[in-house]
Amino acid sequence: MITRAELQLLRSLSDKRHREELGLFAVEGEKIVAELLAAGHPFEKIYGTGAWKGKKTHEIAEQEMARASHFPTPSPVLAVGRIRRDALSPGELDSGLTLALDGVQDPGNVGTMLRIADWFGIDRVILSPECADLHSQKVIQASMGSFARVRAVVTALGAALAGIRAPIIGCALEGRDVHRIAGIADAVIVIGSEGRGLSGEVGRLLAYSVTIPRRGAAESLNAAVAAAIVCDNLRRGASG
Amino acid sequence: MITRAELQLLRSLSDKRHREELGLFAVEGEKIVAELLAAGHPFEKIYGTGAWKGKKTHEIAEQEMARASHFPTPSPVLAVGRIRRDALSPGELDSGLTLALDGVQDPGNVGTMLRIADWFGIDRVILSPECADLHSQKVIQASMGSFARVRAVVTALGAALAGIRAPIIGCALEGRDVHRIAGIADAVIVIGSEGRGLSGEVGRLLAYSVTIPRRGAAESLNAAVAAAIVCDNLRRGASG
Repeated sequence: MITRAELQLLRSLSDKRHREELGLFAVEGEKIVAELLAAGHPFEKIYGTGAWKGKKTHEIAEQEMARASHFPTPSPVLAVGRIRRDALSPGELDSGLTLALDGVQDPGNVGTMLRIADWFGIDRVILSPECADLHSQKVIQASMGSFARVRAVVTALGAALAGIRAPIIGCALEGRDVHRIAGIADAVIVIGSEGRGLSGEVGRLLAYSVTIPRRGAAESLNAAVAAAIVCDNLRRGASG
Repeated sequence: MITRAELQLLRSLSDKRHREELGLFAVEGEKIVAELLAAGHPFEKIYGTGAWKGKKTHEIAEQEMARASHFPTPSPVLAVGRIRRDALSPGELDSGLTLALDGVQDPGNVGTMLRIADWFGIDRVILSPECADLHSQKVIQASMGSFARVRAVVTALGAALAGIRAPIIGCALEGRDVHRIAGIADAVIVIGSEGRGLSGEVGRLLAYSVTIPRRGAAESLNAAVAAAIVCDNLRRGASG
């Protein structure tokens, strides 16, 4: 049994503004909640109906879940976590590999890129405030649990990238062959929005761009697909 | 002005069964229809409202479009095409590169893989009948126009792949390093469903599997992302 006010609070977390105000986010769905729990994510509360066999802190009735849920067909579990507002440490971007998302608005792409960063052991993902919200259901769900494992920082990219020591590398239709970047250990790879490319502020900071050689006629590749190919090529040196 | 029966027919094309019966499909949206027209796709009919400035064969009122459309917010254009029921030629899979989709049910992934095949100049895509419908709005939209350029054949994979001369290569968590397949000119790359992997019938036909070296903790990569990395590695030999 939970109060009406609590149900309203849970339901309000489908809205970014409410998430920001409350400092909380909600994620629903058996598969994704199980993945986040397996990755050790420290949820504040886990509401589960009788059908949810995983860890829970609050047992609630199906009718209550239907009222709390953001879904037309509620899942048996809804977990509430605290929004992470990590900041970059001074000099953090100087070493290691960073994936920087510049205005990537599609939540599926943002989540998929967290998963890619996790697979390739990229040190961190930084996101401009214009990106799809890191704490939205769709981003977390598309990340397949990588949300819990990847260091992700939302920050104004122009300020964060200015003056860093690592090269800032764009991904574009014209540039150096991506097959020649194997083994670079310190870099920031910037991925822009598919429709609008990089913001001017970030574009001016690029050391150079890389391009994925094309053999056919497609005009472009999906942003997450391009990011993955760049990561595979960067990691190539390490694997021989 | 179009008849009520015609409006009903257009609306019915959101359903795969109706598409199959009528041999027709519909695609809506200014961007995707413009891309398909630019790629030379031979539509049977193009219904446009006054707001659609591209090629049209039938001018219709906004209220009519609202009734024909599959979208809650109709676009100013709806194009109708004839379903392609291409078959493989004898020996076709023996040479060149084929991307074979085995039960890939997510339409976004299927469309993205058409786009990837188009980018990398893959000779053809073959899809098992269990894949998301090639002629659905979501698949065509995610292909970003590549639907019109890529040869795509729906076929039972077990029968199509049995006895071919080109090696059949899977993509799995264990296998040969994908970084060592550069320059293979004739092959079938099989991509399975993210959840269920390859069907048993196809799995038994594999010459070997390749794997994308992992440095981090993600359990897997998105199917389209994996396909793109395999294609980039296959095409590497050709680019130096």
